[in-house]
Amino acid sequence: MDMKDILQKVASGALRPEEAEALLRKNPADRPYEEMGFAKLDTDRKARSGFAEVVYCQGKSDAFIGQIFKKLYETEGEVFGTRASPHQYELVKKVLPSISYDPISHILKQEKEKDHIGCIAVCTGGTADISVAEEAAQTAEYFGSHVERIYDVGVSGIHRLLSQEERVRKASCVIAVAGMEGALASVIGGLVRNPVIAVPTSVGYGASFHGLSALLTMINSCANGIVTVNIDNGFGAGYVATQINRLAERGKV
Amino acid sequence: MDMKDILQKVASGALRPEEAEALLRKNPADRPYEEMGFAKLDTDRKARSGFAEVVYCQGKSDAFIGQIFKKLYETEGEVFGTRASPHQYELVKKVLPSISYDPISHILKQEKEKDHIGCIAVCTGGTADISVAEEAAQTAEYFGSHVERIYDVGVSGIHRLLSQEERVRKASCVIAVAGMEGALASVIGGLVRNPVIAVPTSVGYGASFHGLSALLTMINSCANGIVTVNIDNGFGAGYVATQINRLAERGKV
Amino acid sequence: MDMKDILQKVASGALRPEEAEALLRKNPADRPYEEMGFAKLDTDRKARSGFAEVVYCQGKSDAFIGQIFKKLYETEGEVFGTRASPHQYELVKKVLPSISYDPISHILKQEKEKDHIGCIAVCTGGTADISVAEEAAQTAEYFGSHVERIYDVGVSGIHRLLSQEERVRKASCVIAVAGMEGALASVIGGLVRNPVIAVPTSVGYGASFHGLSALLTMINSCANGIVTVNIDNGFGAGYVATQINRLAERGKV
Amino acid sequence: MDMKDILQKVASGALRPEEAEALLRKNPADRPYEEMGFAKLDTDRKARSGFAEVVYCQGKSDAFIGQIFKKLYETEGEVFGTRASPHQYELVKKVLPSISYDPISHILKQEKEKDHIGCIAVCTGGTADISVAEEAAQTAEYFGSHVERIYDVGVSGIHRLLSQEERVRKASCVIAVAGMEGALASVIGGLVRNPVIAVPTSVGYGASFHGLSALLTMINSCANGIVTVNIDNGFGAGYVATQINRLAERGKV
Amino acid sequence: MDMKDILQKVASGALRPEEAEALLRKNPADRPYEEMGFAKLDTDRKARSGFAEVVYCQGKSDAFIGQIFKKLYETEGEVFGTRASPHQYELVKKVLPSISYDPISHILKQEKEKDHIGCIAVCTGGTADISVAEEAAQTAEYFGSHVERIYDVGVSGIHRLLSQEERVRKASCVIAVAGMEGALASVIGGLVRNPVIAVPTSVGYGASFHGLSALLTMINSCANGIVTVNIDNGFGAGYVATQINRLAERGKV
Amino acid sequence: MDMKDILQKVASGALRPEEAEALLRKNPADRPYEEMGFAKLDTDRKARSGFAEVVYCQGKSDAFIGQIFKKLYETEGEVFGTRASPHQYELVKKVLPSISYDPISHILKQEKEKDHIGCIAVCTGGTADISVAEEAAQTAEYFGSHVERIYDVGVSGIHRLLSQEERVRKASCVIAVAGMEGALASVIGGLVRNPVIAVPTSVGYGASFHGLSALLTMINSCANGIVTVNIDNGFGAGYVATQINRLAERGKV
Amino acid sequence: MDMKDILQKVASGALRPEEAEALLRKNPADRPYEEMGFAKLDTDRKARSGFAEVVYCQGKSDAFIGQIFKKLYETEGEVFGTRASPHQYELVKKVLPSISYDPISHILKQEKEKDHIGCIAVCTGGTADISVAEEAAQTAEYFGSHVERIYDVGVSGIHRLLSQEERVRKASCVIAVAGMEGALASVIGGLVRNPVIAVPTSVGYGASFHGLSALLTMINSCANGIVTVNIDNGFGAGYVATQINRLAERGKV
Amino acid sequence: MDMKDILQKVASGALRPEEAEALLRKNPADRPYEEMGFAKLDTDRKARSGFAEVVYCQGKSDAFIGQIFKKLYETEGEVFGTRASPHQYELVKKVLPSISYDPISHILKQEKEKDHIGCIAVCTGGTADISVAEEAAQTAEYFGSHVERIYDVGVSGIHRLLSQEERVRKASCVIAVAGMEGALASVIGGLVRNPVIAVPTSVGYGASFHGLSALLTMINSCANGIVTVNIDNGFGAGYVATQINRLAERGKV
Repeated sequence: MDMKDILQKVASGALRPEEAEALLRKNPADRPYEEMGFAKLDTDRKARSGFAEVVYCQGKSDAFIGQIFKKLYETEGEVFGTRASPHQYELVKKVLPSISYDPISHILKQEKEKDHIGCIAVCTGGTADISVAEEAAQTAEYFGSHVERIYDVGVSGIHRLLSQEERVRKASCVIAVAGMEGALASVIGGLVRNPVIAVPTSVGYGASFHGLSALLTMINSCANGIVTVNIDNGFGAGYVATQINRLAERGKV
Repeated sequence: MDMKDILQKVASGALRPEEAEALLRKNPADRPYEEMGFAKLDTDRKARSGFAEVVYCQGKSDAFIGQIFKKLYETEGEVFGTRASPHQYELVKKVLPSISYDPISHILKQEKEKDHIGCIAVCTGGTADISVAEEAAQTAEYFGSHVERIYDVGVSGIHRLLSQEERVRKASCVIAVAGMEGALASVIGGLVRNPVIAVPTSVGYGASFHGLSALLTMINSCANGIVTVNIDNGFGAGYVATQINRLAERGKV
Repeated sequence: MDMKDILQKVASGALRPEEAEALLRKNPADRPYEEMGFAKLDTDRKARSGFAEVVYCQGKSDAFIGQIFKKLYETEGEVFGTRASPHQYELVKKVLPSISYDPISHILKQEKEKDHIGCIAVCTGGTADISVAEEAAQTAEYFGSHVERIYDVGVSGIHRLLSQEERVRKASCVIAVAGMEGALASVIGGLVRNPVIAVPTSVGYGASFHGLSALLTMINSCANGIVTVNIDNGFGAGYVATQINRLAERGKV
Repeated sequence: MDMKDILQKVASGALRPEEAEALLRKNPADRPYEEMGFAKLDTDRKARSGFAEVVYCQGKSDAFIGQIFKKLYETEGEVFGTRASPHQYELVKKVLPSISYDPISHILKQEKEKDHIGCIAVCTGGTADISVAEEAAQTAEYFGSHVERIYDVGVSGIHRLLSQEERVRKASCVIAVAGMEGALASVIGGLVRNPVIAVPTSVGYGASFHGLSALLTMINSCANGIVTVNIDNGFGAGYVATQINRLAERGKV
Repeated sequence: MDMKDILQKVASGALRPEEAEALLRKNPADRPYEEMGFAKLDTDRKARSGFAEVVYCQGKSDAFIGQIFKKLYETEGEVFGTRASPHQYELVKKVLPSISYDPISHILKQEKEKDHIGCIAVCTGGTADISVAEEAAQTAEYFGSHVERIYDVGVSGIHRLLSQEERVRKASCVIAVAGMEGALASVIGGLVRNPVIAVPTSVGYGASFHGLSALLTMINSCANGIVTVNIDNGFGAGYVATQINRLAERGKV
Repeated sequence: MDMKDILQKVASGALRPEEAEALLRKNPADRPYEEMGFAKLDTDRKARSGFAEVVYCQGKSDAFIGQIFKKLYETEGEVFGTRASPHQYELVKKVLPSISYDPISHILKQEKEKDHIGCIAVCTGGTADISVAEEAAQTAEYFGSHVERIYDVGVSGIHRLLSQEERVRKASCVIAVAGMEGALASVIGGLVRNPVIAVPTSVGYGASFHGLSALLTMINSCANGIVTVNIDNGFGAGYVATQINRLAERGKV
Repeated sequence: MDMKDILQKVASGALRPEEAEALLRKNPADRPYEEMGFAKLDTDRKARSGFAEVVYCQGKSDAFIGQIFKKLYETEGEVFGTRASPHQYELVKKVLPSISYDPISHILKQEKEKDHIGCIAVCTGGTADISVAEEAAQTAEYFGSHVERIYDVGVSGIHRLLSQEERVRKASCVIAVAGMEGALASVIGGLVRNPVIAVPTSVGYGASFHGLSALLTMINSCANGIVTVNIDNGFGAGYVATQINRLAERGKV
Repeated sequence: MDMKDILQKVASGALRPEEAEALLRKNPADRPYEEMGFAKLDTDRKARSGFAEVVYCQGKSDAFIGQIFKKLYETEGEVFGTRASPHQYELVKKVLPSISYDPISHILKQEKEKDHIGCIAVCTGGTADISVAEEAAQTAEYFGSHVERIYDVGVSGIHRLLSQEERVRKASCVIAVAGMEGALASVIGGLVRNPVIAVPTSVGYGASFHGLSALLTMINSCANGIVTVNIDNGFGAGYVATQINRLAERGKV
């Protein structure tokens, strides 16, 4: 039954308008967004993806950053921003005094109390990777996941990771954060049964080429069950880990 | 209680040997494998990861390939090999006459009947990506997942994908297979709530650099919920998709 | 007036179904395509883009290539395929005996008589670039453009190009095809007032890196009015040149 | 008739000097330019290309920048400079007090009133791409084109672009500006019938490699009708778009 | 005799607990480390590798650097840090006033008196490579090796190296430090009988690509006996050279 | 005096046509070439550059190669082609039976007796580089230079080069041919007073990346007086060396 | 005392010729080699480096390969060639019937009985790396080292490596051979006290880029004591390992 | 006659010491240099190469720069330094008050009066390339060459170069300095008979990759007679150009 038939039946009374509306496939071009001139806020996103908007602060102009946080806070009752500078923290604090800032992860947030379900393990090769790891961990927590932090378990002292094997295996998903040669993801991949999200970091020097070496390592892993996100993309890892964790938990209740 | 204490208690009779054995953490160095001289078969793998061994045929020597398939078939009652050549098919058929070969996916398999749970959607940008997509799809099916194939929905005719939106959204996980500029993954990522596993393919020419262009596209996606595997790595995508699909299904029963 | 209002008015007779159909924004997800299992033919393409489908032969399987040409020929009354091998020519000839093959451009075609409007100039740096240049030229001709061929006018003997300056300037669009260092596009860009479409070719050796050097040259041109397509992509250049040529001619009649 | 013959005829009175001048092909080496020691101003350019000179400010020394703007303003009655710093604005203001500066696009200009013909659509993937998009848009406007701005329609929320489809299709040429994975150009290419000029931007991080990822995406696009300019080259895109737009309009009058 | 048998014998008194402990293979997961929350200090390292911990200062936060030096000094009676900034020197001096800082090598150290055994030659191509060479030399000295410095013997004046041939040949191991084209390692490799550790440096400009050119040179050396470490990795070279030097000396006593 | 004035004077008899012709600057667009449809033979080249045309055989079609050699032979009384295959040799032999072929250098030639002036030294790192070295040497000889061959003097046994120092220093120009790490050019550069033309070769494996490593080495040389040509470009080196050698000899007579 | 003084004293009888000869520093330019026209055999090499010449067969012409093996065999009483093809084996067998060929390592050899001293461990990540590992192992054995083969201990099943820890630790030097992501070297580096020579292999596909990924992993290792050789360079690893092993053993006797 | 024979004859009086000295090949290891601890000044260089030492200032420490200039000035009576900062100028002025500094070329010099022989043409594509061009020009002048500056003759307005053709052709050597796509060198190469030294500059943005694009263009030039130096290496070009210019002039007197 195409649009013409449906409309004929509405005209003839054979179909009620509400019924017709349901039959007409929802036009993707009609999904809502808010036109702001310089931007088109995707107000359909939460319904579509199950995740509220998050602010990527890097490069946002001083003129707008405060408003954006305020607006999102009014809509959601909470707000979360990544890659924020201390200067941006000062700007946002003026309009949202209760906002907090974590200089390690560069996250700006004002969070509602919530339950944290399931389990995501966030592991790092070294201490320099913690900045990216915290972006991942706090993202997952903001979206309602429980997180276990297992830091500084790089392969140059493999016993540290082996001693944590049980905690790693219990997670529905493991985030492996490592720079330099990024071998951590492969070793974890060989120990667990759930997915490993590998996050290469730009930690290193010389031929690490700002994270390219770790990225290639992770993409080429000889272990199964490993997928990769962009260099330093803790947010992306925390997001996908939450998707997986939600799937793992949804049938349990 | 460390090893010394445990052993003292065994000596004093305060602890039975079986109790002591449980207390002493299982030494990872003692996990089983089978020494074959040129290889060490990881016989602990299935217990550890939940997945039986799969044969990566490319580069396997003629002398061994038949034996490997035979041995795995005897152990598992089924067997699955990727990247096999027609010549290897002939060799394996001699020792395992019931084996079948798919020239599109280059998969050699002899499969048990099994239930296929949940839902994984495998999408391709074009028809040239189907070879890799089938590797992903058949891998997921071998490991017990139900698969929906949605082929040739590349972004140059976006309405083809939009018309399939509901099928894509229903999957617990979407595998997006695309070469050339690999934009498919980003568009799908914007439509769904579950993870998207992006598989760049080596389809293309000139500045596609054998899949590098598509790989970079996917790693840099502006959409959330996207993770990436190696160029042409259909197997890896099917494996992780099954991990996610199993998690999504485990609590439902 | 949103969908709900429109349907209410149809139900009340305030709006006729045909009027309603015009008002409802056409759903892009409803545009037509033909489902073939392994492919989804974009039957909406010609209406949308003004260009009939063309067959990219490279990698097409022997099983399908004949059918595809036959089907397109039946629909359009003519057919055009790029990057075809002599072997594919043999296969297509069986189902479409009147098809012709050009071993220089690797084009398979059966073309209707048609007018060729406007003017596109196709220039090459050397004779080894002619294969790609012919793909561009014949594509433009197939889509109804008049083409001027100006071959072997590379910068190592610049007087050859200078002697052709008037012919180059008269074109609504110039296609500059060059390998090795690809300097031709910049020199032409400095001589003309209409767009130059630069096509890097894989002609060269050593540090030409299969066309990468020429691609970078063209992308970095110091001359204005230059745009670039993929290495060896004669078809893409002929297509865009025709788009521009049609625009230049549409108001003249 | 070569030079010798022509001169003989002039000497014999068989040819008037004016006739001879027309017959002797104009020597390209005799085209005018202005020698300034450190530079050779190409005073023939406007006649040759139809476009007045534009100042590329980046790297211009403080000593010269004011003079250059003044001189061009005196010649053209208007002046336009790209990639200018606030400091350069201060310097130019001293000699040309009416000059204006746009900190978003980094454009310095003093523009004559003029008609804006035809239609060019400038689209961006996100808000961070607006800086480059404005360079393109204002360039096109300076050269007399009408511009439609369609910002923040990236593929992660594809309905925003779909809702603007008609505006995009009406343009004689679309400029698609996008960073990160740069998928916007391919999706637009699949929707329109006129050329798409793709501008990769350096927006992104990690494996975006300062715009290389977006550049490769655009060069490898699976959609037809797409050509590419250098990373962040808004000016180049605005220039070519104007060339196309002028061609589209020239026959209409 | 597996764990079960051993424990039975302990229970039966056939084996004393201490004997059992020796028999049970030491579980790698039980090796010691110190949990510090943000880090897991590998306290097993010296026993395992024969080398005390060294502090890689770059990127260490101001809050921790002093404590780390203090703690290591208390454990080892000496301490050594690489890639330290003058600012970090100030911070460490507050808690460890006797610490010294070398602005050439960027090394922070407080060293015990010790014998320096054997011989390691450290050669540089130019004077700009001395910073990296000193990191190598002082690392080797800290770990107890005798070092011969042979600086500025690059291949553009080969007689300088030839005049030092005997000193170079006497070393148990040669460290060749060079930037730009890095040819020094190959020439030395052709003169000696012991291993050459090649250290590419980031000295150079243009197509040296921050040390990549020198790295490739060293990896591709036509001379035998050459191994390579990361760009600017003087520490790594000094460490391996000491391993080799210790092996060469261990049997001499 | 511009064209108008000159022509007026010719008309008035104040200037003879021959005088006018000398005054009118020769138009570069009028320089001769021969139009062959698929090619424009640059018949002005020898007058302009001092070098006769040479045939680059690689990729030349079977249909044309014989004619090209024949035509050049008729014009010059000798002929020289590089990168020829044995198959091309057979084809050319049919029309030019006296042609000879060197399977080492892949050169096809029929050469006139001539004097060989001055001195060019051609050095190689190893024996695998001789193919490229011979292309350089025979090119230089064809153009009338005397050549000294000094092969297999790579840096892994530096005494071989040192023993030849006098021969190398006597040349007006040295061609240094080397693959793998390509260090030879730097060492020679440090020994001589005349220019060194470095030719990287594709000899090597792994990280030599088909000559890229040697190219970077040579471009980054720490020695003065070194210039570089493309990978395996023996012809280019022989050509420039002859230019230099001719300059060195021109004043001696 | 310079050359002049020494000669004066010889002339005056104050110094005997033999004394003078010892005083005059041996001129490196006088070291012996054998001139063969196309090659200069470095007959000084064994005295200088302690290692006899080895034949790198790849690319050696059929005309010479037999002679080279014969000559070396006559000089040394044994002979060893790497990267030989089966075809080369046939050629060499004609002149040296006792030669043997190993199709796994592609080594041609005729070896003297000899003692094998010390211990070198050769480890591989997978079975596909064995070809390169055998080149390393047999090279070390040819030069008199004892070798322990520990194959297929890749990080995806880390217990296989852990179970071999003692064997690995006992070696004076470990060769770690791995392709794909090459993580093996880092894990071994964390377990041992002696040097690890990392050999990246070209095993892998897609973004392994023919061994580049493994090379970068090894160069960037977070573990200490790791040095790297070229991709697939088993010979180079076996050579350096022997240098180290000889040093470790020299003082023991 | 080897060393032993010569010495015997000296002892027997059959040869005078001076005759023996001439016969004994000069040992390259005995060539002079000055040991300064951190450096080995190559005092043999001028005799060997015909060029006095030049100071590469970039990276030279404040502590040494003054002394180095002073010392060289005392030796040569003039001094020349490249890539100097204004700060270094201040430091050198303290010890050498007559030194002058050119902020365009970043050259520090105190020059003797001298004749400038022959002719070198230095051409640039644009005005931004003048900094590098001046380094080349002033280097050539310092070493005694006459220089013609022909700036801003890039290919986007080719008539500017054509009008200078005679000046360019008269030079014994042309230096072509260009950034962005670097096409200038190829066009000049097609116009002249003497060598062209191509200097890629880092001028450009986006895909120019800091000069890599121009470097590849120049290395791959389709014109003959072109050699290339490192990105921004004006000094290197001026040095080689002087070598060529001296050869061209040496026989004239």
